[in-house]
Amino acid sequence: MNDNYPSKLLQRAVEQFTKLPGIGERTALRLVLFLLRLKKEDALDFTRNLQQFIEEIKFCRICNNISDSDCCTICSDPRRAQNTLCVVENIKDVMAIENTSQYFGLYHVLGGIISPMEGIGPGDLSIDLLLERLKQNTVEEVIFALSATMEGDTTNYYLYKKLKDSGVKISVIARGVSFGDELEYTNELTLGRSILHRTPFDGYPSTR
Amino acid sequence: MNDNYPSKLLQRAVEQFTKLPGIGERTALRLVLFLLRLKKEDALDFTRNLQQFIEEIKFCRICNNISDSDCCTICSDPRRAQNTLCVVENIKDVMAIENTSQYFGLYHVLGGIISPMEGIGPGDLSIDLLLERLKQNTVEEVIFALSATMEGDTTNYYLYKKLKDSGVKISVIARGVSFGDELEYTNELTLGRSILHRTPFDGYPSTR
Repeated sequence: MNDNYPSKLLQRAVEQFTKLPGIGERTALRLVLFLLRLKKEDALDFTRNLQQFIEEIKFCRICNNISDSDCCTICSDPRRAQNTLCVVENIKDVMAIENTSQYFGLYHVLGGIISPMEGIGPGDLSIDLLLERLKQNTVEEVIFALSATMEGDTTNYYLYKKLKDSGVKISVIARGVSFGDELEYTNELTLGRSILHRTPFDGYPSTR
Repeated sequence: MNDNYPSKLLQRAVEQFTKLPGIGERTALRLVLFLLRLKKEDALDFTRNLQQFIEEIKFCRICNNISDSDCCTICSDPRRAQNTLCVVENIKDVMAIENTSQYFGLYHVLGGIISPMEGIGPGDLSIDLLLERLKQNTVEEVIFALSATMEGDTTNYYLYKKLKDSGVKISVIARGVSFGDELEYTNELTLGRSILHRTPFDGYPSTR
């Protein structure tokens, strides 16, 4: 940090923003000066809302998703299919899948994926909670929807070993050529898998 | 904003960050989830320090700089030359000049520069405060240190007209070829000015 701050309050405010990922000292100073130019009430709104979030936010006791109450809106919605669970890494993935409007079951949020590089092991994820859920015998299918990376594959394999004797059907989201991608630039692994797992074709464009 | 937030608290927290310049919804969500992964006390530190900054920060009654008290550390330092004033746009420029360790006088922070495009006129700047200061008759030289842009030039000219009859010496920071720049890529205006305002040369490298 620069030592020439004429104000300790300013310096400490800048330090708060530099704690955040991807924000350096220059950007932090710009953000703090922006807050200072706002009306005082609007600037205080910023900190008050964040403080309320930090103090009151909860994790759903059923699926481990971020929630305003003990049980999240998805878990407490009786219209969702109770027999299907989609296992995802975090809330961003829940939101991405909800945006597709193609999934009507429940979720289970792991809170991360196994990553030895970042020191995240199975014990850091909500896997025990998932196993408890399956003991209720309402779930018939578990869909693994993790990233198509080494870490995602590792986590898929670990979960598979834990779940394979539980009697539920286990599936994984399809791998293949993304819409909009040109074959020429698709990597071999993806292209090979897309041929192996080809689907019946009915003549309609696939994007309809 | 995405409508699929499973939590109103989360959505409101994300909205706070999207108010800041250069931060979109995706980045905002990433920052909020980062705060959530911190220890609760550390996360609350973030909002508490910012709140304290917003509530307690002051502007120096003499130079208009951001300050912890009524009179900033520079204005209240008796070792600074009281007869020289450097006029700058904002606190970032004060810090930049302080970092050079080449200036030992006082500052006057305008709080902006004249910019019709952004709707900032002379009335929005602390020009009256500057004129009041000059009436004390302790200041002998005023140095304009504004950006070398159209807005900076306009402000320089406006200030010059206001100050020219006050009896103080008026100067402007030197324009010329930046250290590290190659002549070939220097714009004509700068290069022409650097020849016109050439300085005596004593044989030593200019960066010593």
